[in-house]
Amino acid sequence: MKLTRRYRFSASHRLYSDSLSEAENRAIFGKCANPFGHGHDYALDVTVEGPLDERTGRIVDLDVLDRAVRQRILEPMEHRNLNVDVPEFVDGLFVPTTENLALVVRDRLVSAWREFFASETSAFPLVSLDRIRIEETKRNIFEVATK
Amino acid sequence: MKLTRRYRFSASHRLYSDSLSEAENRAIFGKCANPFGHGHDYALDVTVEGPLDERTGRIVDLDVLDRAVRQRILEPMEHRNLNVDVPEFVDGLFVPTTENLALVVRDRLVSAWREFFASETSAFPLVSLDRIRIEETKRNIFEVATK
Amino acid sequence: MKLTRRYRFSASHRLYSDSLSEAENRAIFGKCANPFGHGHDYALDVTVEGPLDERTGRIVDLDVLDRAVRQRILEPMEHRNLNVDVPEFVDGLFVPTTENLALVVRDRLVSAWREFFASETSAFPLVSLDRIRIEETKRNIFEVATK
Amino acid sequence: MKLTRRYRFSASHRLYSDSLSEAENRAIFGKCANPFGHGHDYALDVTVEGPLDERTGRIVDLDVLDRAVRQRILEPMEHRNLNVDVPEFVDGLFVPTTENLALVVRDRLVSAWREFFASETSAFPLVSLDRIRIEETKRNIFEVATK
Amino acid sequence: MKLTRRYRFSASHRLYSDSLSEAENRAIFGKCANPFGHGHDYALDVTVEGPLDERTGRIVDLDVLDRAVRQRILEPMEHRNLNVDVPEFVDGLFVPTTENLALVVRDRLVSAWREFFASETSAFPLVSLDRIRIEETKRNIFEVATK
Amino acid sequence: MKLTRRYRFSASHRLYSDSLSEAENRAIFGKCANPFGHGHDYALDVTVEGPLDERTGRIVDLDVLDRAVRQRILEPMEHRNLNVDVPEFVDGLFVPTTENLALVVRDRLVSAWREFFASETSAFPLVSLDRIRIEETKRNIFEVATK
Repeated sequence: MKLTRRYRFSASHRLYSDSLSEAENRAIFGKCANPFGHGHDYALDVTVEGPLDERTGRIVDLDVLDRAVRQRILEPMEHRNLNVDVPEFVDGLFVPTTENLALVVRDRLVSAWREFFASETSAFPLVSLDRIRIEETKRNIFEVATK
Repeated sequence: MKLTRRYRFSASHRLYSDSLSEAENRAIFGKCANPFGHGHDYALDVTVEGPLDERTGRIVDLDVLDRAVRQRILEPMEHRNLNVDVPEFVDGLFVPTTENLALVVRDRLVSAWREFFASETSAFPLVSLDRIRIEETKRNIFEVATK
Repeated sequence: MKLTRRYRFSASHRLYSDSLSEAENRAIFGKCANPFGHGHDYALDVTVEGPLDERTGRIVDLDVLDRAVRQRILEPMEHRNLNVDVPEFVDGLFVPTTENLALVVRDRLVSAWREFFASETSAFPLVSLDRIRIEETKRNIFEVATK
Repeated sequence: MKLTRRYRFSASHRLYSDSLSEAENRAIFGKCANPFGHGHDYALDVTVEGPLDERTGRIVDLDVLDRAVRQRILEPMEHRNLNVDVPEFVDGLFVPTTENLALVVRDRLVSAWREFFASETSAFPLVSLDRIRIEETKRNIFEVATK
Repeated sequence: MKLTRRYRFSASHRLYSDSLSEAENRAIFGKCANPFGHGHDYALDVTVEGPLDERTGRIVDLDVLDRAVRQRILEPMEHRNLNVDVPEFVDGLFVPTTENLALVVRDRLVSAWREFFASETSAFPLVSLDRIRIEETKRNIFEVATK
Repeated sequence: MKLTRRYRFSASHRLYSDSLSEAENRAIFGKCANPFGHGHDYALDVTVEGPLDERTGRIVDLDVLDRAVRQRILEPMEHRNLNVDVPEFVDGLFVPTTENLALVVRDRLVSAWREFFASETSAFPLVSLDRIRIEETKRNIFEVATK
């Protein structure tokens, strides 16, 4: 059984790598390399998988999932500039494409899993992260498995 | 080749288990345990898989699929209270979470398959049920494979 | 200038009037009169109108609007049974159709306006309620002006 | 007869006025005042009104409307930072709220109307701009009439 | 109080007028003039307005509205070619643009109103047609008032 | 890592096979066999899979993907009649169901892959086509893997 929960956050970014020349950046990223950035309303779908708890008919505690996503993803990224406000992207070499953003989100949630779900006191110790999926716009969707 | 067909139905439910105390129910289900229930407009996606029939260019007879879903799922659940009107949930122990609702829908369709699709006279004897997926709200989506 | 802000809440209801016979209720409300109720995910659009505040470029304080809608509409109705949990509908004569629900929402917001927006200390003393609109389902939408 | 045509563009902005103190900006605009900005995928609905041309069954030439919107709105704003890239907002006093953005879009289209539609050679000399509407997110929608 | 109800139908059309030359048709209608037609999934929103019936909390009988729309609009147009199957368009001069389609839908519903709603036995004798609105695609929306 | 990109095109079709009798066509395809056809606004989702290019943070060049889809799918099908304008369907035996349309789209993109992506000069030589998915309407969705 899988459950997907949708979150939203708005952020800005600029696609530009310091390892590329101005002309290369322009050729590769086009208007996404405009110097002062632009923004999106990202939709983040987090999919978890696990056995049903018979007593409650649930596979995950949504409050815990919400807390994990809020602490690790939404609060640090909501209404932020990904290039400047998110540590993974500040070096100017790891470009905040939505592909890379998906990796960052996945890695943050994977590393949060033990704390939020896999602890001894967790009500759902067997639930695992299945995949994350980000809609940059309605036309561009990125998905990365976590296993 | 897979085909997904979307159905909708509105129903009410209360998340509450007679095997739990009042305080446990409140702790686990929060406002979903409110005594008089609440409701949702469920979107049900039924995905079938099968070989293409060369003559007709189809993998399933949609009229038959619609009839199966209507008889087994929509008519018994549409505009109903899941806790009271759907036999699987009336014992007060099997909580009508959407996880469990997905299991009920899957089991009902699996058991209907022989009658509707796998009979000798079926035009699509090889079509199988691949998965069902229920959107409780736009934020919470549940999926269960059938194989 | 008008601003529309969207809210969502899930509730259940039964369309049934004690002033009608069982047969009349069934004839008029059909499956909506099923005895144990059913439910919807209502989308509520609140539209306000007012002059722009030049300093801030805004026509309303969204935090105040959210607080008004949360206190008067969402908290009393979210995950509730309209027939039982909402005082306007408990007499069994005022049927919780979405038409009537729209009136209740409008009247509650109109009466909240002085407290939340028209007080002397309000930053937006001239903003007014323009209309409310409720989507019961994607197919049925109800709108009522407030002026 | 009215026709509404939808356009989309992604941009970033920061809600901050140089006429307000740091504390006032934070109090009024909250996380929208974060120093490095954030972004949205704006949906812009342009509604025009006019008599039907009997020969063609149309009220407007969509190619001309698209050209007007592209030249005046999309090209200067698409993948841009509203505070820095759009002249109306660079003084730091006219805050790029979506309310003000709606005014800018309206004013730009009104001033473009003579050139694109009201010229002697226009096939639709009587079509007029009825209103513009911007969805900042699915929850916040701004509408301004043009008459 | 207004109620909007949404219907959907799929049809094909070709934008081409016999009163125009081949070159004019191509210049005006572009790819919409391709000789063998193309198609759309139209969404039709019918808005009615009327006083609330106190006993039932309704402004219109949805079954009657559905019957009117089904008989006059959906059955004659669903899965049809507008140029060939809909009498209003067969002369080759009245082009089946969605503007003209909106007029046809409006006129058909206006003329059906007496039969379906304004008869002596109608439960909602005062309900009136407020406007109809057709989404040709998500980008092009046409609206015509009926008063 | 997978990326899905969405395209849209409007086309008309008639479901009718010359290898079947009139009565059989009517029995199998119902109103979809109406003689003059009908139409849809198809949404085409193309999913590609590949390793991330570290320098650019991308798995595919969207301009190239757009060009491939435009040349092979959109330009030949947009605003066209599938039965008449698309060579695969003109023999009257291969019925333009959306199942078969999905196969045609898949085969065209698979055969375009070497030219557009797998050439020696491609910036993303390892990206592969994962699946294509077509929404005929919001209720009927077809998906075919490409591996």
